[in-house]
Formats: sequence, C-alpha cells, structure tokens
Amino acid sequence: MRFESDNAAPAHPAVLAAIAEAGDAPGTYDNDRWSAALNEAFSQLFETAVDVVWATTGTAANTLALAALCPAYGGVICHEEAHIANDECGAPGFFTGGAQLLALDGSGAKLDARAVRAFCDGRDVDQHTLPPRCLSLTNSTEYGLVYSAAEMAEFGAVARAHGLRFHVDGARFANAVAASGASPADLSWRAGVDILSFGFSKNGGFVGEAMVLFDTALGEELRYRRKRAGHLPAKGRLIAAQIAALLEGDLWLANARAANAAATALAAAAPQRLLLPVEANALFLRLAAGEAAALREQGFGFYDWDCDATGGIYRLVTAWNTPAGDVAAMAGALRALENA
Amino acid sequence: MRFESDNAAPAHPAVLAAIAEAGDAPGTYDNDRWSAALNEAFSQLFETAVDVVWATTGTAANTLALAALCPAYGGVICHEEAHIANDECGAPGFFTGGAQLLALDGSGAKLDARAVRAFCDGRDVDQHTLPPRCLSLTNSTEYGLVYSAAEMAEFGAVARAHGLRFHVDGARFANAVAASGASPADLSWRAGVDILSFGFSKNGGFVGEAMVLFDTALGEELRYRRKRAGHLPAKGRLIAAQIAALLEGDLWLANARAANAAATALAAAAPQRLLLPVEANALFLRLAAGEAAALREQGFGFYDWDCDATGGIYRLVTAWNTPAGDVAAMAGALRALENA
Amino acid sequence: MRFESDNAAPAHPAVLAAIAEAGDAPGTYDNDRWSAALNEAFSQLFETAVDVVWATTGTAANTLALAALCPAYGGVICHEEAHIANDECGAPGFFTGGAQLLALDGSGAKLDARAVRAFCDGRDVDQHTLPPRCLSLTNSTEYGLVYSAAEMAEFGAVARAHGLRFHVDGARFANAVAASGASPADLSWRAGVDILSFGFSKNGGFVGEAMVLFDTALGEELRYRRKRAGHLPAKGRLIAAQIAALLEGDLWLANARAANAAATALAAAAPQRLLLPVEANALFLRLAAGEAAALREQGFGFYDWDCDATGGIYRLVTAWNTPAGDVAAMAGALRALENA
Amino acid sequence: MRFESDNAAPAHPAVLAAIAEAGDAPGTYDNDRWSAALNEAFSQLFETAVDVVWATTGTAANTLALAALCPAYGGVICHEEAHIANDECGAPGFFTGGAQLLALDGSGAKLDARAVRAFCDGRDVDQHTLPPRCLSLTNSTEYGLVYSAAEMAEFGAVARAHGLRFHVDGARFANAVAASGASPADLSWRAGVDILSFGFSKNGGFVGEAMVLFDTALGEELRYRRKRAGHLPAKGRLIAAQIAALLEGDLWLANARAANAAATALAAAAPQRLLLPVEANALFLRLAAGEAAALREQGFGFYDWDCDATGGIYRLVTAWNTPAGDVAAMAGALRALENA
Repeated sequence: MRFESDNAAPAHPAVLAAIAEAGDAPGTYDNDRWSAALNEAFSQLFETAVDVVWATTGTAANTLALAALCPAYGGVICHEEAHIANDECGAPGFFTGGAQLLALDGSGAKLDARAVRAFCDGRDVDQHTLPPRCLSLTNSTEYGLVYSAAEMAEFGAVARAHGLRFHVDGARFANAVAASGASPADLSWRAGVDILSFGFSKNGGFVGEAMVLFDTALGEELRYRRKRAGHLPAKGRLIAAQIAALLEGDLWLANARAANAAATALAAAAPQRLLLPVEANALFLRLAAGEAAALREQGFGFYDWDCDATGGIYRLVTAWNTPAGDVAAMAGALRALENA
Repeated sequence: MRFESDNAAPAHPAVLAAIAEAGDAPGTYDNDRWSAALNEAFSQLFETAVDVVWATTGTAANTLALAALCPAYGGVICHEEAHIANDECGAPGFFTGGAQLLALDGSGAKLDARAVRAFCDGRDVDQHTLPPRCLSLTNSTEYGLVYSAAEMAEFGAVARAHGLRFHVDGARFANAVAASGASPADLSWRAGVDILSFGFSKNGGFVGEAMVLFDTALGEELRYRRKRAGHLPAKGRLIAAQIAALLEGDLWLANARAANAAATALAAAAPQRLLLPVEANALFLRLAAGEAAALREQGFGFYDWDCDATGGIYRLVTAWNTPAGDVAAMAGALRALENA
Repeated sequence: MRFESDNAAPAHPAVLAAIAEAGDAPGTYDNDRWSAALNEAFSQLFETAVDVVWATTGTAANTLALAALCPAYGGVICHEEAHIANDECGAPGFFTGGAQLLALDGSGAKLDARAVRAFCDGRDVDQHTLPPRCLSLTNSTEYGLVYSAAEMAEFGAVARAHGLRFHVDGARFANAVAASGASPADLSWRAGVDILSFGFSKNGGFVGEAMVLFDTALGEELRYRRKRAGHLPAKGRLIAAQIAALLEGDLWLANARAANAAATALAAAAPQRLLLPVEANALFLRLAAGEAAALREQGFGFYDWDCDATGGIYRLVTAWNTPAGDVAAMAGALRALENA
Repeated sequence: MRFESDNAAPAHPAVLAAIAEAGDAPGTYDNDRWSAALNEAFSQLFETAVDVVWATTGTAANTLALAALCPAYGGVICHEEAHIANDECGAPGFFTGGAQLLALDGSGAKLDARAVRAFCDGRDVDQHTLPPRCLSLTNSTEYGLVYSAAEMAEFGAVARAHGLRFHVDGARFANAVAASGASPADLSWRAGVDILSFGFSKNGGFVGEAMVLFDTALGEELRYRRKRAGHLPAKGRLIAAQIAALLEGDLWLANARAANAAATALAAAAPQRLLLPVEANALFLRLAAGEAAALREQGFGFYDWDCDATGGIYRLVTAWNTPAGDVAAMAGALRALENA
C-alpha cells in the first residue's frame, strides 16, 4: 500500500500499449505520426493554437522553458520550495547560462501575487543587480495546493506590469485542473502564461512531458535548445505516443481525478492531522513517530517530510492507480489513530 | 526495404518486453533492479570494474562525458565530420560550458593518431589559446570505418603523452566490436579510454544509452551532471531495463553482427561503387542520379549524402533487423546496375 | 566631505605615478617587469610561496576564483548579503557555468562557522540536490565587521571536514588586516584559504585586483579562465604596476589603517547610533530623516542604506584619503545630534 | 626599433594625462563625466545616434557583443584566422553560453561575401544543426587588409538576407578608416553593422575599448552582461577618460594614419617580399632565416609568423608612435636585402 509518490506509480496500460505500437513504427526524432498530432490535440484542449515541444523529463521541460523565457543575465522569481529551486540540482542555472532564482516564501509552496509585486517594486534596477525577467509557479504546488484561475490571472497581471515572462511547472497540472474545475485555458494562457510544462510522468506516463507554448514564436528556439540539451531521442515516438495516449479521451483528467479523490478520502479521515488543506493529491500529516511507525508496520508506505525522532510531518501522495482498497485501509488506520 | 538509418529501425521485441515488465515495477530514478545490475553486467563484459551511468540519448551520453573530461576552458580534438561536431546542435559547447571542438580531417571520418600528435605538438601553449584536453573518437565512425584495438592503443598513447582525456562515441560500438573481433576491453580501457558512450538505440534499443566509466572516480560527478541536464527520469527503469535486455545473452552483439553482415553482403554486390571499405554497417555508394532514382522506384529507401542533380554519393545503413530478403533484393539490384 | 564609498576615493599618487611610468614600458599581457615581480612580493607578504593572478575588477577576481574552486554542478556557501550574492549581477553563475549560491544569514553579513557546519550536515546528499563545494567569506564584511584569525581557522576546519574549497573576497582585506592585527598569512592560508581576492581599488588603486593562490596548482587554470573572460589586457602592466606600487613599503596597510582610524573616530562620536560595532572602515548609523538631511545640508555625503521617509540606517565609509578635517567636522556634527 | 605589435606600443601622452586627471575625479562605475559624454561624441563621429558601452579589453568588447547578437544555440560566421577564433582562448563560447564559431577561409583573413552567402545557402536548416545567427568581420583584418565601404555593404546585404546579426571586430577600426578613406558610418551602420568593437588599445590607449551600438535597444542588455562579466570597474572613469582623449580632435585618426603611413613606407621598400598588399599597418614579409636574423642583429624587432629553420613569413606591425627614424632605418635595411 504505497503512498510515497505519484512518480513511483506504474505506467498506465494505455501508455504501455502505445509504446508497444510505436516500437515498430516509422519516423525518427519528432517526425512521427504521434508527434505530428500533438499540436492539434493540445490546441483543442487549450482552446487556442499552441505549439508543443515534448521533452524526456520534467526537469528538462521546466528548464528548457526557463532558458527560452529568461536571459542569462536575468532572474526567475519562484517559491523557495519550488522543484526548480530544490530538486533539479541546479538545472535552471545550467540551462539558462547562469540566470539566478529569486526565491520568495509563502505557505504550502504557494506564492502570493502581492508579494511578487512588492518584491519587484522594491528591487533596485541597475546594472549591479540581476533584473527579474521571469515568474515560475508550480500548479498544483509541491505541497498539493492549487492556484485558481483567478489567482493565476492576478499573477499574470503582475508579470505583465513588471516585464516578466510567465512559466508554469505543471508536473501536476492535471491535478490542478481536476481540483479547480477550471479549464486548462483559464489556468494558463488566459492568465498570461507563456509556457506550461505539462507533466505526464506523475499522471500515468512512463517517461515524457510536454512544453505547451502559448507564445508559439518560441517553438523554433525551443527545438534547437532541446536538441543541444540531448533531449531529442532518435525514436522520439516513444515519448510522443505516451502523451497521445494520455490525451486520448481525456485519460489524463480521469487519472488526475482518481488521484485527487483518493487524497480527499484520506484527508477526510484525518482532518485534525493536516498541515495544509488537501486540494490535489498530496497530504502532509502530523504524526508522532510511534504513529508513523505503526502505520508502516501495517504496510503503508510514505515519506518522512520534516520530522525527527519524536515525529513531525509526513507526506502521502496518491496516484492514478491508488487502489480503492488501499485508500479505505489507510483511511481506516488514520481514523483509528484519532480514537487511540 | 529501408536502408535509411539504423536509428530508424524498430525496437527489438526483447526491449519492448523489458519495457512492459518495467512499467509496473518499483524503483524511482535509478533505484531499480535493472539500474542496480548494470555495473556488474558491464564489468563482466569489459573484464574490469566499471561504473555505468545511463542517459536518455546519445547526444547526452557524449556531451555529459565531454563535460566530465574537458574543462570549460579546454578543447576537444575530434574529426570534423564527427557526430559531436555536426549533428548535436552545439551540445558539446553547452554541456562543457564553452569548450571548443578542435576538428581535424581524415578519410572516412577517421582520425590518424600521428595527425593528432602533430596537431598537439604544433599548437601554441599559452593563455591566449585553448589547450587541448580531450580526444574524442567515434567507433565505428560516421562513415562505417572501424578503429582496431591496435589503432585505439596508438591514440591512447598520444592522449597520455599530451595530457588528453579519452572519450569514445560508441553510438555503434557494438558494430565496431562485431567488425573488429576485438574485445570490448581492447577497444576501450586497455587502450586508455576514460569514458565510452555505449549506444543502444541503433542496436535494437528504443531510447537509452550508457556511459561506461573506466575512470570510476567520475561517477559521482556524472550523476550530478546528468540530473542537472534533465536526464534522470523518475521512472528511469524504462532506460535501464532496455539496456539490460540488450546485454542479456549478448543480444547487442548478435544484433550488431546481423547488421554488419547485411552491409557486407551489399558491399559484395557493388564493389566498384564503394566510396570506402565497408567495415561495419554503413555503405557509401557512387551512383548516377538516374541509378539512385531507379533503385528508389524499386522500393529501396536510402539517404542522399553528397550528391547533386547528376548523382554522387548515397548512404545505405543496415540494422539489426534488416530482412535477408531486403538484402538479397538490394544486392540483386546493385548487381544489375553493373550489367546495365 | 564624502563618506559615500571607498571605491569612490581617488587613486593614490603613487598609483598614478606607477601608471605613468608603465605607460611607455615594454611587455605585453602579463609579460612585464611588474607582473613578473608580484609572486615574490606577495610570497614575502604571506610568508609562503604563492602564485598571483591579477584581474581588472573585484567581481572578476571573485568569480574567476569561484570558477576554479567550485564545479558547475556545485554550490557556494556564502552570506545572503555578500557582494557575490547581491552586487555582481549574477557573475558567479556566469563564471562557474551555473553553480548556485547557497546563502545563509547572520548579523553584519558575517557567517557563523557553526551555522555553516549545521547547514552542511543537514543537507541531503543525493543527485537531486546541488552539493556544497565551496565556502566564500568576505573579510572585512560588507558591513565592516572583521573575521579574526581564530574565526577564520574555524571556518577552515569546517571547510576541510565537508570537502569545501575556501575563498575569501578580500575587497577590503587590507582593512581586515589592519583591524585585526593578524598577519595576512593567519587570515588566509594558515586558516585553509585556497584563493584570496585581494582588493586594491578600495585601497588607493585605480583599477586592478589580485587573486592570491595558496593552492598554486590552480594558476594555470586561472590564467586560461582570465583570458577567456577578457580580463587580460594587452598592456596589463597598467594593472600590475598599480598593485606593485601599493605593496611597496606596505602602502596598502598604511592606507587601510588610515581608513580604519577615520571610521573609529567617527564611531566614537556617535556610539548610540551604531547599528553594529565599527571594526574596519564602515559605519551604519541610525538617523532620523531630518538628521540625515541636516547632515547633508552641512556638506556631508553618505548613502541611504535601509531607510524610508522617517529615517533608518545610513552608511558612511572612510577611505585611505579621508581628510582629518572632514573626519573632525563629521564627528562634530554627529556629536551635535546627540545634544540636539 | 620595435615592429612586434601595435599593442606593445606606449600609451599616448594625452591618454596618460587623461588618466591622471581622472584619478581624483568624482563618479563611480560609469557615472562620471567622461562616460556621460561618450554617446554624444560617438554619435557625432558616426553621424547617427549610437549607444556606447565601454569595456576593459578587446576580447571583452568582442565577446560581449557576440553574446548580445547570437543566442547560445546559434553559430557565428567568422574567418578561421579571426582573433575571436584563435586568440581569445574560447571567450566566444564562454560569453555566449556555448554558441559555436563557423569558420570560413579566405586570403589575408578576409571573408568573401559570396562565400558567406553560399555557406548559408548550403547549410542544413534543422534542429540537429546549429543555425548561423551572426556574422563577425575584423576590419582591418588580422593580416592588415581592409574591407571597403562597398564590401561592407555586400556583407550587410548577405546578413539581412540570412537573418544574421552583424558584428565588427574593430581592434584596428581606426586603421581601416584611415586606409579606406571611408567614413566611420559607411564602414559600420550604413552597411548594416549592429555592434562595432572600436579598439583603442592598439591606437594609443592604455587599457579600454568601446562597443558602439547601432542597435541601441541592446544597450540595457549589454550593461548587465558587462557587469556580470566583471568588466565594470568601480573607477571606470579610467577607461572612459582614455577613450575621450583619443576622440578629442580626432587623435585616434591621426594615430592610425601615422601607423598606416609607416607601414606603407616599409612596404615600398620591399615590394617583392610582401605576402599580401599592405593596406593598413601590418606587413607580412617573406624572408630567408638568415635575412631575418641579420635584421634582428641590426636591432629590428618583429614576429615570426609562419616560418621554420629556413625562413618563411615574418610579421611587422607599425604603431601610432613608430619613429620616422626607425621606419627609415628598416626601409633601408629591407632595400639592402634586395641588392644583396
């Protein structure tokens, strides 16, 4: 009964079937029928003409996008607990040629649009100081919070006012759409987003993500950047076919809804234990060390987050495939803690 | 009847089976059972203790290796027709932080060890001029020639004498082993090679390559570099499982032998037409434009290489799966040209 | 009566004389008699054999040093108010190829060795997270505090224990030596420092700084890095001659003592106003806005530091040439504030 | 009697006087009266509104300009014997973040506009191949040849047609103006040049060069890039004052004319010996080894260029200050060789 991470979940059967089909299909690099169909599929999904450049990983999708949006001498405003700040081993600095992250704080890894505005207003504008040129948000956040369409629009206004390009790390964009009920368009280009890294590997994919370009003029540059970063396999149909499979019939959305529903069910079982509201597919629970140990003895897997020998915060993440039985068992175990 | 490129060939069934098996298996990043077994498998193959770091593409494997072997202020000696010089969109400059390729010529994309020595001897050594710090060879070469173990050893001696680290782009290393009859060890570390990019995607793999580190001290650095370049997917078992499948029972070698044999058979059918000896799995044929067109009308696919409206040089590449019937048909068609 | 910054002070007459003499002297790049003499002069000063590489600016000296000490995939531990973090427009990221600053806090821009140790101990060591590889301190700090020899030795011990190379931004190293009474050796290599950026442009120089390499094996690399960063003028004797002039007869130390003494005298006049102890040549004073305005009306120039319409913190910096009369006048004005 | 290089010449007395005056003048970074006046002075000289960003060296001026004109994933077309290709230790790769030089040949380090056009036309345009994005010419060339206004206009047309930005390395732009009789405008923006690196250190300056921006929108970016490359000294008036002194009364032009005239006089003395026409201030002479040795015994200094134990090509360069007596003596010695 595994609640460690959605990126540890299996590849969806539809994804594996697509891979098998693509194994013996024509087309090198991104000259295959799946790659060719992505622009149309995403354009329908986003209700506008987009250009889509797939990449092999989320780190690549995020930092290729940043390289296209932020000059080497610029700064990227992000949250101090953002994936790009903590979990990509300096990839933003590498891909941009030395641009610097300008990290702000905020509860649940969520930025506040007014804080971004204040940061920009308060920053010196002279040649000694890196100018902010890009804003990067993660939706849903690394703590499972969701930016609504209205919040996104606020950030878009700040970005426009301060000359910032706007990137979204959508490693769990599907979960944000499912949770907010907003349209993909409202959570992206209608709010002023320039590039969305649309994640699939936490959503039933095996390996592969998509950069969705709302500023389609960036497509040429991103294809050159992708190749020189080694992210264009000869048999790129492996990537494109997976993405196509997850778009088909809105499988991505069904997968995200399943993951979110599982998290909601768990949250309902332990309302007193929650560090933060559960909006997407992650829970952060306050547990005593003994409680955590007891849960693990019952066969539940999850991560230590911010804890010591006495206990603290533990993270549970649900996925597209989290079995109903596992959810029920964990919910039961959490309720039992309350009554212990 | 397709002779365009071995990177357009299908993924091998054993590779697809491995992917399917890995789809629902535990282990994130490179913490899976396939990744864990690679060091041992490659160490046996190379008859020495190696460290193996897989990557998603050949461009990544080549240029991550160069970044570990050549400082940003150094130069990489290579052939002017090397893949790293012509087909990676500047990836070496990106990954190394600005190191420069120092390109030499030579027939069939093959360097001459004496020419490398002469180049190093003749180069100014002062702070105005980038110092050569690395040598990179492709084996088999972009024109299908093979460096023998003795030739490799000569390069190794030059590299040692001039303080050059030694990299091999082995996108078709399997073909070089099959063609030369030399052991993997003799074509690599026994000749002084520090890192070999061992290619699988032209050998029946779908997506994935291995950096084989004979200087195992570089392993830590390369894992950091791989991650910050976005080449560590969460479900990296997709990559590792493929490589394991191709190592199993020396499938990689059988695949390379099949490809080489097909090329040899074609070469025997058109000895007068060959630009270069056929040593591995590529043929470069002199054809009149009309001859090329006639072959294509018969259903044979291949690349224009260096030709104009009157004809010139055309490239044919065989692969692990080139059907015997296709080879026989093409051989017959080539013989018919001679008698026409 | 100017207390804005020591980098706004004039070039010392001895420096101007040296420049004039160097104007028509032989020697290109660093092949001149001044450059040739620097290693010996600094080796005497530091009581050990050092290699010295001059550069045109402090930003260059700092970040060339960081590039030699920290790999592109590493992190540099520094103070969040360090010059390298705030006033170099991202130069560390540029010169290192994307290494990241890992900024800690501490009063007066001064790091605490125990905090550095705790930071290293608490940091994940895995491929997702940039590994700390270098420690950079500024002595005297951006707030005019001084690390003693004993404090430096503590940092050296932490650096050794955690595999960190050790850099000192010595834009005001002269002031630190003058203030601490410690020897240059005790404030550098005896404490484990690998490279010191020894500043001269705040010390009576016009343009030019020195990287003092205690790890002399880095000299070759730094000369290549300097050239490729454009910091090797054809008539580099302009730089070397200035440094030589300031070393001659320990002019650098006399200059620093004069600056420190002026600051001490000012501090004595306003003990209640000091944000921090005055250890070198900078004062940070608490003033009401009206007080600041009144001082400026009397002809005193200084910087707003952290203040608003009601007042706050203002910075005064003294220099090698701050006239005794100016100091006396300012001291009198400050005392008058107390009695007002 | 020194003919080694114009960058070994002394600083002009007017330059030294300006430095002395600037030594004790207000203004930090580029906030001084000399820096403030440069835009106006250069705008008059070039008959159009320009923005001027000074830098400390020619390497910096060239490669900062390239960084602003060529993306990291692009290529810079230049001559294979260009200074940026051979004498800057990889600076273009460093400053641009990995862009690659695409080097063409041509006699006397001079490119041919038709060859550039053919190169662009013949180059693959796909994501595997670095796209040419910038053209960089040196005028006068590294062999002392001069591009005329008409030739420059041809290059400008090619650049426009192929989407190339246009940079000129004008380390000896003054000599090109003096030699061609063309206006600075005709040799730059009227031909489509975006940025000119206007050299002063070979023209009587001590240390300092100017980037003249005809595309003034690049000024903001270049100031950020300059700072993060460490090329903005606190007392930048040292640089600006020198440039101002050389502009004053067209001293730069008089200096260049003097240098060119000296070279012309030498050329007239040895017409049979010239490798190339002498158009600016450099001569390349064919000499037997014994002849070269004999000249050196007479006290003449010059560089070996491309020669061996039997002789070959030797380089002589004249400068703003080459004494008439030295020229006469060398001319006599060369004539004597003919009659020997």
